[in-house]
Amino acid sequence: MTAATHPSKQDVKVAVDAVIFTVRDGRLMTLLIQMNKRPFTGRWAFPGGLLGDRQTALAAVRRILREQTGIAPSYLEQLATFDDPGRDPLGRVISMAYFALIPDAGARLRTTAKYTDVRWWPVAGLPALAYDHREIAAAALARLRAKLGYTNIAWSMLPREFTFADLQEVYEAILGRGLDKRNFRKKMMSLGLIAPSGNLARGGSHRPAALFRFRDRRPSFMDIL
Amino acid sequence: MTAATHPSKQDVKVAVDAVIFTVRDGRLMTLLIQMNKRPFTGRWAFPGGLLGDRQTALAAVRRILREQTGIAPSYLEQLATFDDPGRDPLGRVISMAYFALIPDAGARLRTTAKYTDVRWWPVAGLPALAYDHREIAAAALARLRAKLGYTNIAWSMLPREFTFADLQEVYEAILGRGLDKRNFRKKMMSLGLIAPSGNLARGGSHRPAALFRFRDRRPSFMDIL
Repeated sequence: MTAATHPSKQDVKVAVDAVIFTVRDGRLMTLLIQMNKRPFTGRWAFPGGLLGDRQTALAAVRRILREQTGIAPSYLEQLATFDDPGRDPLGRVISMAYFALIPDAGARLRTTAKYTDVRWWPVAGLPALAYDHREIAAAALARLRAKLGYTNIAWSMLPREFTFADLQEVYEAILGRGLDKRNFRKKMMSLGLIAPSGNLARGGSHRPAALFRFRDRRPSFMDIL
Repeated sequence: MTAATHPSKQDVKVAVDAVIFTVRDGRLMTLLIQMNKRPFTGRWAFPGGLLGDRQTALAAVRRILREQTGIAPSYLEQLATFDDPGRDPLGRVISMAYFALIPDAGARLRTTAKYTDVRWWPVAGLPALAYDHREIAAAALARLRAKLGYTNIAWSMLPREFTFADLQEVYEAILGRGLDKRNFRKKMMSLGLIAPSGNLARGGSHRPAALFRFRDRRPSFMDIL
């Protein structure tokens, strides 16, 4: 940043917003809070709030998620910053949007009395959203879908051990389409992202299914080149 | 964003910064401006400046690049927003960093009298940078390298037609390591990103080399799943 092009004044505020995804019963779900303030009373929005003066955006997101939903996500990354000058009718606010993933087991909400309602919604059927949150939702979904294709990101939405059927359910829920079982299995094994855990799934009336695990439960890229 | 968690005041400014890359003579280069103001007098920084009140960040980046360097990049995307509370010693400024690519032919500078110096630097040997610009440089390089692996992004650093040697030079400059010629060619052809243009390279004392083009000169992902 060089001083010569600085406007002399600036009236912009900085917020953070968090898009959390989980897969439940084969559906991709996201968490929304119903607003109780004008001009968006009754509309739904992603958990969020203004950045504190001495706080990093990541710390702000973690604090806001804890306060508004009780959730501590297993995966959290910066999605993008949304800066349309008209996105907030009450003044210029840019939003640093974050993108969080959790397995279904981590999706229990601690509801607070502060908000009208906090609820998981299917991504395929979102209610009317406040601000530009429909655009943020679309960007988050596009990022998640793209990352399935070049990273091991699905680990963050699955338990430590899972069946191949569980894995396929997560991929299908995110992509929003069915995948051929045999091709999917072949592709997954050739990518080397997962390995048999050596254990079998218990319970159920069927033949016990083999359990798998991700080789790496930290973000990593597939090695294509 | 829900009103309940808003701090009552906020004293944060928003800037934009642009990391421009090009490949010249087999080296990955980035553009820096030497600062003439305290506390970073003499240090180098990416082109940047404060966001205008009614301006999108993308418009601000294009304006700043035009004013400070005369460059209109062929590829421009948001990299990430850098928000460490201590990144600017004169006050809280978050930076929306952008990531730009140009072919070498587009890298001619229009120098202006405003700045001490504007210059292309090899990424492998950057001078002392202002703010957290070393961190921004590292993030931009990591993004560029990763995108080589899952997108067609190299189109934006090459002319419309190029030889296989040109293509390999760009990949090697970005990755910072040599690639086996035969394997690289095989991989590139199997990915389906490029196709022969039907023309031959002119000039030189060698046998004329076949020219290639990118099938798509817009951002696209490789189809892995």
